[in-house]
Amino acid sequence: MTTNQTMGKIILDRWEASVKQCDTLVNSLSDEQLQREIAPGKNRGIYLLGHLIAVHDHMLPLLDLGAANYAELDEAFIKSPDKAVSELPSVAELKAMWNEQKEDLKQKFDKLNTDDWFGRHTSVSEEDFAKEPHRNKLNIILTRTTHLAYHTGQLVYLK
Amino acid sequence: MTTNQTMGKIILDRWEASVKQCDTLVNSLSDEQLQREIAPGKNRGIYLLGHLIAVHDHMLPLLDLGAANYAELDEAFIKSPDKAVSELPSVAELKAMWNEQKEDLKQKFDKLNTDDWFGRHTSVSEEDFAKEPHRNKLNIILTRTTHLAYHTGQLVYLK
Repeated sequence: MTTNQTMGKIILDRWEASVKQCDTLVNSLSDEQLQREIAPGKNRGIYLLGHLIAVHDHMLPLLDLGAANYAELDEAFIKSPDKAVSELPSVAELKAMWNEQKEDLKQKFDKLNTDDWFGRHTSVSEEDFAKEPHRNKLNIILTRTTHLAYHTGQLVYLK
Repeated sequence: MTTNQTMGKIILDRWEASVKQCDTLVNSLSDEQLQREIAPGKNRGIYLLGHLIAVHDHMLPLLDLGAANYAELDEAFIKSPDKAVSELPSVAELKAMWNEQKEDLKQKFDKLNTDDWFGRHTSVSEEDFAKEPHRNKLNIILTRTTHLAYHTGQLVYLK
């Protein structure tokens, strides 16, 4: 295993472990639990679930893996805070999207090789990437992994 | 910059950003806020702060950077759940430890070079490390970064 393969493995393993932890949690919470506020006056579970799907969806164009699939979620779950938008998908619909997205991302990620992961993400130009090689696709995975961990720590309080 | 330097930078940058985010939060919360439960019946802020200090402290021997400094925190903040131990340090004492530890870790991390970071951590033998080179010091930083993000997501609800 080359050092690059090792480093790709470290970051992708951490992403997968973080997805698995959140996935087990989300699928163990009832629709009623996910409708609750995590703490009085704070975000509801449904909002965080929609937020995670929307944020992960945007990885696709960033990683050059195609267009976002759930752009309709942006308004309610990225651009707006919780409770600002009254018409939301149901918890059941969001859970179905989460489970579908989980498989889709895994399949697409599995097709990338180590060189792909060390290549630039699409929001950095070739010129800038030559100067800032840390702005690679693995870095996208890493920042989304800590983002996911942050919100999983919140969702766990719904149990 | 070599690829190894790039990868070291990506992970260490993410650690530092995560510490900074938590540090700003912890130092913005009053002692009274940190005494509160994050959600009804859940962990108190003081417990999570002590837990983070204790977990980060154990990185020192794992990274071959010396002995743990706050081993007295283990009983209350790692081995026991919140509220099981009645005699805890004060919030002010824990905040002082957090701030001291933050500087100490930064100084020690800054002295390691890229080869050090790609070397094995102390809980893996040389023999196993030859077969599993991903069990390096950077991997310790990465797992502690997602752990920190998870609990920062909880602490933020004290605001």
